[in-house]
Amino acid sequence: MNTFGDTFTFTSFGESHGRAVGGVLDGVPAGLHIDLQLIRDELDKRAGRGAAGTSPRALREADEVEWLSGVMECDNESVVHGTSSLCTLGTPIAFIIRNTDARPEDYEWLKHTYRTGHADKVYEQKYGIRDWRGGGRASARETAARVVAGCIAKQELAQKGITIHAELIQVGTETDPSKFTGTIETYQKEGDSIGGIIECRINGLPAGTGEPIFNKLQAELAFAVMSINACKGFEYGTGFGGVTQPGSAINAISGGIAGGISDGTEIVFRCVFKPTPSTPKAGVKGRHDACVATRAVPVVEAMTALVLVNQLV
Amino acid sequence: MNTFGDTFTFTSFGESHGRAVGGVLDGVPAGLHIDLQLIRDELDKRAGRGAAGTSPRALREADEVEWLSGVMECDNESVVHGTSSLCTLGTPIAFIIRNTDARPEDYEWLKHTYRTGHADKVYEQKYGIRDWRGGGRASARETAARVVAGCIAKQELAQKGITIHAELIQVGTETDPSKFTGTIETYQKEGDSIGGIIECRINGLPAGTGEPIFNKLQAELAFAVMSINACKGFEYGTGFGGVTQPGSAINAISGGIAGGISDGTEIVFRCVFKPTPSTPKAGVKGRHDACVATRAVPVVEAMTALVLVNQLV
Amino acid sequence: MNTFGDTFTFTSFGESHGRAVGGVLDGVPAGLHIDLQLIRDELDKRAGRGAAGTSPRALREADEVEWLSGVMECDNESVVHGTSSLCTLGTPIAFIIRNTDARPEDYEWLKHTYRTGHADKVYEQKYGIRDWRGGGRASARETAARVVAGCIAKQELAQKGITIHAELIQVGTETDPSKFTGTIETYQKEGDSIGGIIECRINGLPAGTGEPIFNKLQAELAFAVMSINACKGFEYGTGFGGVTQPGSAINAISGGIAGGISDGTEIVFRCVFKPTPSTPKAGVKGRHDACVATRAVPVVEAMTALVLVNQLV
Amino acid sequence: MNTFGDTFTFTSFGESHGRAVGGVLDGVPAGLHIDLQLIRDELDKRAGRGAAGTSPRALREADEVEWLSGVMECDNESVVHGTSSLCTLGTPIAFIIRNTDARPEDYEWLKHTYRTGHADKVYEQKYGIRDWRGGGRASARETAARVVAGCIAKQELAQKGITIHAELIQVGTETDPSKFTGTIETYQKEGDSIGGIIECRINGLPAGTGEPIFNKLQAELAFAVMSINACKGFEYGTGFGGVTQPGSAINAISGGIAGGISDGTEIVFRCVFKPTPSTPKAGVKGRHDACVATRAVPVVEAMTALVLVNQLV
Repeated sequence: MNTFGDTFTFTSFGESHGRAVGGVLDGVPAGLHIDLQLIRDELDKRAGRGAAGTSPRALREADEVEWLSGVMECDNESVVHGTSSLCTLGTPIAFIIRNTDARPEDYEWLKHTYRTGHADKVYEQKYGIRDWRGGGRASARETAARVVAGCIAKQELAQKGITIHAELIQVGTETDPSKFTGTIETYQKEGDSIGGIIECRINGLPAGTGEPIFNKLQAELAFAVMSINACKGFEYGTGFGGVTQPGSAINAISGGIAGGISDGTEIVFRCVFKPTPSTPKAGVKGRHDACVATRAVPVVEAMTALVLVNQLV
Repeated sequence: MNTFGDTFTFTSFGESHGRAVGGVLDGVPAGLHIDLQLIRDELDKRAGRGAAGTSPRALREADEVEWLSGVMECDNESVVHGTSSLCTLGTPIAFIIRNTDARPEDYEWLKHTYRTGHADKVYEQKYGIRDWRGGGRASARETAARVVAGCIAKQELAQKGITIHAELIQVGTETDPSKFTGTIETYQKEGDSIGGIIECRINGLPAGTGEPIFNKLQAELAFAVMSINACKGFEYGTGFGGVTQPGSAINAISGGIAGGISDGTEIVFRCVFKPTPSTPKAGVKGRHDACVATRAVPVVEAMTALVLVNQLV
Repeated sequence: MNTFGDTFTFTSFGESHGRAVGGVLDGVPAGLHIDLQLIRDELDKRAGRGAAGTSPRALREADEVEWLSGVMECDNESVVHGTSSLCTLGTPIAFIIRNTDARPEDYEWLKHTYRTGHADKVYEQKYGIRDWRGGGRASARETAARVVAGCIAKQELAQKGITIHAELIQVGTETDPSKFTGTIETYQKEGDSIGGIIECRINGLPAGTGEPIFNKLQAELAFAVMSINACKGFEYGTGFGGVTQPGSAINAISGGIAGGISDGTEIVFRCVFKPTPSTPKAGVKGRHDACVATRAVPVVEAMTALVLVNQLV
Repeated sequence: MNTFGDTFTFTSFGESHGRAVGGVLDGVPAGLHIDLQLIRDELDKRAGRGAAGTSPRALREADEVEWLSGVMECDNESVVHGTSSLCTLGTPIAFIIRNTDARPEDYEWLKHTYRTGHADKVYEQKYGIRDWRGGGRASARETAARVVAGCIAKQELAQKGITIHAELIQVGTETDPSKFTGTIETYQKEGDSIGGIIECRINGLPAGTGEPIFNKLQAELAFAVMSINACKGFEYGTGFGGVTQPGSAINAISGGIAGGISDGTEIVFRCVFKPTPSTPKAGVKGRHDACVATRAVPVVEAMTALVLVNQLV
């Protein structure tokens, strides 16, 4: 339910305005050095630091990771100077990010209100109770824990020569990246929001990765990416656009996967993120993001890394 | 690996030109009457009987289901006249569909050849061995077993008032259903093939269904549908098209799901199927389908049914 | 529910007097030669052929295995003369053993009767329906499928130098194996039955196998063995007898496992099987076994093999 | 690996002398009041407070539970006066118990030493690295987290009328409970240790609970109990002692389970715990327990509760 993966598992927990968000990673190989700087950088990207249209809360949260278990300071002999001195033990790695800027009182009005386009009502329908403070468990703040987990997965993948790179390729109708900031700021000024498309490329994955029937590699990737807040679609290879082309024209385009199994070439997929529904223009108070797709980029990479590491560990 | 679901599980087995394809269903509630006529009809749809551009082999296979376990003839008192007299026992239901038209010799040439756009090579890379006869395990013949499983899931869902309806909404650039047969026949005559888009609608699903984090309902649906041969993309709600609209314009469109949980309204999703790569025009011998999307319609319904029944059993 | 294992999984199906019992093995490495003679021998042991006190039905069942998928005839180059010519493909292996001596009519009286010491009543309580023919799914006939699966697991283990050997070490109060046949025949003549203790030894397992917390190797073995019909207890290392010894006397006896992880020495465990409750003396008609522990020996080995192969594949 | 259960899951983490031990519970129904006093009492039992022969460290650890997620203060309307005011949200419940008396320096000598009867060496063999501080992950301190999880499971079971009661029934050769303290103190004075047998009784479990093939109720219980540190055997119903009795004498003794499924009567099982190997007499420094079986009683109840709640939630 709140666990992703079966060999390198990530269990996520935490509410947006509770004590902390965090997670437990199980199945991480022993002896991996944790790159704390990578985690710092990716958490900053997810928080939207330096990006246009970011919610003020995201910027105020320190996002400090506290490591509770599964790691020890590396022995002198294995320390690489200038980097992290935390090594994995092979036992479950638990970590938390405390919610230092939690302001439940800002959300008191939500206690008896369901916001349009949010999960407030369905949580109540499912559980009969909900943490109304800033979206509680449904808040995208949960993705901070995913980013930490994804960074550890990425390091394991990097050792195998596998890289993942996601980037925003469209905002609204705009496809020129140099104009994305301007586009987002325009919507922000209007108290509105806009969606975006992210493209992700995987390189270095050995041919033969993936399972041929239900757990096809594309199915695992779609599952992982569609689990990110606000994601509304996934495609790879010829995608939706390919519907207009005859087989004779496109039968050599694999998107890096054949029959659910990687073929050794670059894997390319795209996913679309809708604009956040809670905006001043929609009459919703509180802190808002003008383009959540910007902040989803490191989360797409994190979920992709978790998919791949589960195939290979 | 070859099992789908965790409460109402379906394990699929079989190669295209081996003894049989089949499956085992576990977790099916006891006392369910199996509607053999529904299974017959859906298998016929999957075989493309009556549809344009279908491979001759599909039409020759009888697709007779043999029930091996988990069912008994219903007692007199519970028989509904005119329908099936098989009742589920609560124990695993194993069934097979024998490959009566298996012609391994037609595929002898494949023993040492990898077809473009097929999984021949990646199977060899993954396993070091493969059943080269007509695609073996990678053949879409495996989806016959999915259809049987999906029919049993649908019957369980029907008892709860839940219905699933998929249909082809686009073939190539054509969106008028009355012109689909003509379009497909045109490609067939040219020894070519064409893709299509299927739309699926779920009604009657109670609000509160789905899990909020990784196993969001849309993620489960995407996973299931993307596992179907030739599927290249999945979208729901505002989908890819929504990227051009501001939040203020689309924040009320949920697609039937909020925060991963059903909101009680109709769920609508779409998926795209690429044209089959093995066509005479591409220089590939053997039996081919001009538009596999036609035959994918009952498979999309089956996989959707398996997703939903796993949420509710 | 009816699946054992998570990497090398075995799904069991079938009722005692239905069409067949059988199973699906998933995760079996490709390229393994199946030793059909080993399977034949182990099925004979399970049927009690040549042993004292065996039920007549067991002896009449041919126990012929039909392979439905996941195997192909080995290529000439890889055939080892004089052995099987079936090779695994890496895809799911489905097999069935038809119930040729099924005599539902012999059990008509069970339709409305619950036998003491049997699962007749609890099945009805759990499912509201049951296959009353000879115990249906609860019959130990299901273990024939386990034996087939275990043989394939054993072959994979044998390649890694791991062997499993189980034997009966006690029948009633008798611990001299040369007197077991006599003891069993005495109970059989009296229309009664008697229990037994089986000891199992695992050799060649590399140190470091097993998981340290919940999935300790001894917990996995206990789970597997306690799932066999009529098994009432499991112990390893110092076992129950060790309770009377101080730590200073026994702290070096590991039983081959420390902290849930194998230490590279021989693993020894014991398990106890109760006598069958359906005997003429207890007023129960039908075919009966005087000592089911005899026939449990290959099943204990099979379940042990399935545990180990899941740790290593 | 470090997760128990599949519907009401418990993921355990933490090393004995690291930052904390703790866990994540997923699948806990929303709206359950957490009985903090029960948790306090059970943690005290596990720590051996008030019992003979307990290690000094256990007594010094405060064992304060910090709740990180998944709970909120109950609303006024639902508070039951005098009890806890924490309610579950249906989201994952993460908690930690900080290791306040962690003294890594006491264990510096273990860095390059493997203790007999401990898991020091196998951890190194499995992971190539280990937390040598006081046993690290292999320390029984991990069971504190199991006790917290078990208490929440017990509360859910109590609502369904199900109770679990475990107690020590034998220490060494002594079976008179009034003499257990004296017996343990004798071994402690000698710098030695002794084992014990715990009996556990489950009442109120509805008939029909459990799965008939691999996940038989007795198999699940054996798996759970055998995963507790120092447990060497499990038996239920007629157990090992039943081997000497003919079927005619014992066929009505079910131990509360038939064919893997509860029959509605009391379930009784027993398990044996070996004496701790690290004692002064064995030449091992550090804090030791003279009879770990005493402290295992609440852990046996906790694991039993986790098994049952997984059958019923």
